[in-house]
Amino acid sequence: MVSTAELASVAPALEKYGRTALAPLWKRASLSPRDRSLGTVAALIAGSRAVELSHQMDLALDHGVTPAELSEVITHLAFYSGWASAMTAVDAAKHVFARHNISPAQLAEASPKLLPLDEQAEAQRAARVSEQFHAVAPGVVEYTGTVLFRDLWLRPGLAPRDRSLVTVSALVASGQVAQIPYHLNRAIDHGLTAAEAGELLTQLAFYAGWPNVFSALPVVKDVLEKRAK
Amino acid sequence: MVSTAELASVAPALEKYGRTALAPLWKRASLSPRDRSLGTVAALIAGSRAVELSHQMDLALDHGVTPAELSEVITHLAFYSGWASAMTAVDAAKHVFARHNISPAQLAEASPKLLPLDEQAEAQRAARVSEQFHAVAPGVVEYTGTVLFRDLWLRPGLAPRDRSLVTVSALVASGQVAQIPYHLNRAIDHGLTAAEAGELLTQLAFYAGWPNVFSALPVVKDVLEKRAK
Amino acid sequence: MVSTAELASVAPALEKYGRTALAPLWKRASLSPRDRSLGTVAALIAGSRAVELSHQMDLALDHGVTPAELSEVITHLAFYSGWASAMTAVDAAKHVFARHNISPAQLAEASPKLLPLDEQAEAQRAARVSEQFHAVAPGVVEYTGTVLFRDLWLRPGLAPRDRSLVTVSALVASGQVAQIPYHLNRAIDHGLTAAEAGELLTQLAFYAGWPNVFSALPVVKDVLEKRAK
Repeated sequence: MVSTAELASVAPALEKYGRTALAPLWKRASLSPRDRSLGTVAALIAGSRAVELSHQMDLALDHGVTPAELSEVITHLAFYSGWASAMTAVDAAKHVFARHNISPAQLAEASPKLLPLDEQAEAQRAARVSEQFHAVAPGVVEYTGTVLFRDLWLRPGLAPRDRSLVTVSALVASGQVAQIPYHLNRAIDHGLTAAEAGELLTQLAFYAGWPNVFSALPVVKDVLEKRAK
Repeated sequence: MVSTAELASVAPALEKYGRTALAPLWKRASLSPRDRSLGTVAALIAGSRAVELSHQMDLALDHGVTPAELSEVITHLAFYSGWASAMTAVDAAKHVFARHNISPAQLAEASPKLLPLDEQAEAQRAARVSEQFHAVAPGVVEYTGTVLFRDLWLRPGLAPRDRSLVTVSALVASGQVAQIPYHLNRAIDHGLTAAEAGELLTQLAFYAGWPNVFSALPVVKDVLEKRAK
Repeated sequence: MVSTAELASVAPALEKYGRTALAPLWKRASLSPRDRSLGTVAALIAGSRAVELSHQMDLALDHGVTPAELSEVITHLAFYSGWASAMTAVDAAKHVFARHNISPAQLAEASPKLLPLDEQAEAQRAARVSEQFHAVAPGVVEYTGTVLFRDLWLRPGLAPRDRSLVTVSALVASGQVAQIPYHLNRAIDHGLTAAEAGELLTQLAFYAGWPNVFSALPVVKDVLEKRAK
């Protein structure tokens, strides 16, 4: 955690940009502060950016992300950014949760009643992935079905639209451009608007860096144009 | 380092997934726990995931990775994930080694007798890389020969097959898809089976994240199909 | 921070490579130690490699990078590697600056008189980016003009050539190959020579890892060949 005074003592211009560029960014229309927090926290977890992460988790709680949702974001990204990234996030969150007196009773259950599954869509997804990759890595194909799409994505503690927003943010932040089309389409199917997607990229330009966003832009554009047809 | 109790207090579902998904993962056939540890530690070093790294180093020692091998994995990845990633690993390993009473005498020598070199294969590799890139970056071409292929890869403290397994894991974990074909072919030449490669991807799905593995899968598939012809 | 003794106690070979490979690397012709430091610090900030970063900041100051320039490198990379990477760097720099008794008076002002802008070139850049991406993410297009090219790049505390060197280093270190052509061309326009670019890749092979450099090499080669025509 870096204080404003420390920031000003090392990079005065950055302290200024924090006031003149970042502060108004969070208030722009098209995307709520809550959604900006979800995307930002996801980007930081994806990159294991521990120093800034606890501050952003505090901010997320202030913006209306519930402790249960924050816990679920970490759980979700254990799979989309790797177990170790989630452990970095847990390490930060334990202090944030302690400061906010958040108790386990406020968090999502380990094994809740799952949301209903669209069996047909999942069967199609599973068949496509199995055809492509079962011969190469049967374990990956199996776990993608059992653990991810028949369990993790159906956990009720975080809305599917928010899971998708978090997933897309993590993909942009880690330069995983090839995986964006599937998950951005899924995000839009789950209710994310094109305007929100564009503004999420604006948020991520600041928090995941311009190059990651410029690498994602052509892919996002292509997804949106294909859907507009 | 995150304790199980801390994990459960922040993300109860993740603590559950640790028991229900990760624990059985480590016991799956096709890849030994030792090889899983090599791949996992490599993935974490590649991403400088410090929080989880010391736990995984402990586990690697439990799984039969020797201190000399672990030291050599760090040395190897100084070149394949950058010097700074290795320093993060050394910072974690110094505590792990102290806890296990590992002394320098147990580690690989700084300058051991090197394994024999396949001069013809190395001459071909060097000629190909030199033709492509000598005019652009003569220093890279030079060091790739002298430091990497005529020294690092010939160090006897880690078998060539294990060096390749570690290298491929680091490439997958850092999204370096373009470098996978050369190193996966080398891994298979050194004795890694196709089944082991597929199961390594399964291990890495959990520890490097699903997107990195899905970006690697088409490339791995292509390498395996070309070799099968 | 890892001491030499700690390094030798965990990875004796790495301590040897530090003496036999890294030490002479910093003294090679074609790129000054100062420029090597700029590239190395940028690579570490891009990857949030906290353990090695403070050591490399010390070294950069020894190599003639001024505190004002170092502060400006961090500011620059807040945008090119994301705000959180810059906060990791500030967290490291505050200790470095304290050790060196560096006071805010020595740093670049928050709001200095900016360098003159090439209005025509900027209008062309803005028009091209707007045409491509305004419909997708108007905020990104807007901020790229106002905050980056009409403000950040014009700050006088770091020469445009050095900003470009730092940007290209960060792109290589984070595997952002698609963004290299624009910024490498800009670097060369700003005075970086082809020999310096090649030697910067050599430096980055060690500090950002061989795979990142081998993924960048074909792109760098292509840029240089097109300019040679």
